[in-house]
Amino acid sequence: MRGVEDGLIVVKVGGAEGINYEAVVEDAARLWKEGTRLILVHGASAETNKLAEALGHPPKFLTHPGGMTSRLTDRKTLEIFEMVYAGKMNKYLVELFQRRGVNAVGMSGLDGRIFEGKRKKAIKYVENGKVKIHRGDYSGSVERVNKELLSLLLEHGYLPVLTPPAASFEGEAINTDGDVAAARVAEAFQARALIYLSNVPGLLKNFPDEDSLIPEIPAAEVERYMAFAEGRMKKKVLGAAEAVRAGVGRVVFADARKDRPIARALAGEGTQIH
Amino acid sequence: MRGVEDGLIVVKVGGAEGINYEAVVEDAARLWKEGTRLILVHGASAETNKLAEALGHPPKFLTHPGGMTSRLTDRKTLEIFEMVYAGKMNKYLVELFQRRGVNAVGMSGLDGRIFEGKRKKAIKYVENGKVKIHRGDYSGSVERVNKELLSLLLEHGYLPVLTPPAASFEGEAINTDGDVAAARVAEAFQARALIYLSNVPGLLKNFPDEDSLIPEIPAAEVERYMAFAEGRMKKKVLGAAEAVRAGVGRVVFADARKDRPIARALAGEGTQIH
Repeated sequence: MRGVEDGLIVVKVGGAEGINYEAVVEDAARLWKEGTRLILVHGASAETNKLAEALGHPPKFLTHPGGMTSRLTDRKTLEIFEMVYAGKMNKYLVELFQRRGVNAVGMSGLDGRIFEGKRKKAIKYVENGKVKIHRGDYSGSVERVNKELLSLLLEHGYLPVLTPPAASFEGEAINTDGDVAAARVAEAFQARALIYLSNVPGLLKNFPDEDSLIPEIPAAEVERYMAFAEGRMKKKVLGAAEAVRAGVGRVVFADARKDRPIARALAGEGTQIH
Repeated sequence: MRGVEDGLIVVKVGGAEGINYEAVVEDAARLWKEGTRLILVHGASAETNKLAEALGHPPKFLTHPGGMTSRLTDRKTLEIFEMVYAGKMNKYLVELFQRRGVNAVGMSGLDGRIFEGKRKKAIKYVENGKVKIHRGDYSGSVERVNKELLSLLLEHGYLPVLTPPAASFEGEAINTDGDVAAARVAEAFQARALIYLSNVPGLLKNFPDEDSLIPEIPAAEVERYMAFAEGRMKKKVLGAAEAVRAGVGRVVFADARKDRPIARALAGEGTQIH
């Protein structure tokens, strides 16, 4: 028997400037109506920074010893984060689906503990060359996905639109990486494809030179490609390779500034990791 | 067979100052763990006004020819409204449940079209004694509730936490009266009780004199009580009588500043309409 989960696609759309959300939803709605089952995960970082500035609580980012950065999330930041991610952006996307006759259900990772993980209260960071510790942060990584609730919604014809925050194991709201959350969803469903849409054409050899697009990375050769990768891109490539090894059909990094961005990614555009 | 919906309680908690949300959730979580099925509907008006002021888009209210007032909801107001109702307040309440081990799922009326109604684009209002028309508003009244989705969640052990906006029949987000939305939910489930919690002890004969609490109104005698009622209270009494006539066991207006506010309302405190 062919279940609604066969051939599921997980699409993660970032929160950077320049993304054409109408085109993403238009494409997702068309695929949905043609019978493709799909889960959308989204971010809202640029909007969150704007609101945080407007409310006099400007964003702060910590640089970790490994070179990665993350948003410092105190309680006030968490509230602002929830307003933009779970309020403005999530409901905007759900509305775009509803206007197209697709019955979307928007939820954060807190709802039904869709995204669950360990809260990391103490975070090491580097300042003036010294390693320091920030305590009391509301953040953590998604380790568990509530697949049962997502399946229940899909089986009944609802398209899930998901966003951070996640729930800690103690039930606290925690800021979490949306890319990792999307990968955990794709792995839980053994998705046909996991598509990361952002405001660049894919992974770039020489960022931000868009002509330096890397069209393809076999998952087995990821180590060799690490030479090109830095910081956030390194994390993306390693995360993609991990998802493929965990059973996801393929991972694609593609452009969300174009029309039909999902169909293009499925047709081979962007960077394909398989 | 006793279904999960037998004896369901719908609790609406307002968005005014002074409400003890921790006490409301603590009480709801205790009842839930004891086996009572429950749906929570909430507002967030005071917080929305604060955010609107902080963002330089202060709230405006229209006075209708009948004397009622409503929030003027342009597109920018709708975004602010969604940030506070569906973002900050909804996720705050879901988090309070999750911390107590109750698997709540927070959704707006847009999600799965849980609340659906006609968008009322043109609104008559009174200014300087003249009746004028405001056009392009994003508001409307809930006419239909997606009971199937709510039942699905309840049957699988999830406590729904619901909030405006609603979806228009065309799929647009619309600002809507939370009290009416809660009544439509209670009617759809033929709820045992519909409890309105706010920052007063119940319906007051001489507002704001808390000693003038009206303890009881038989639904059949509502007309007689209309003599005391003005504006918003009139609407509340009429709405409650309508819900009782539509099959809701009883409607209670009770105090959300006290501990165990739901248990107190069920035990007979506040204003009981039956």
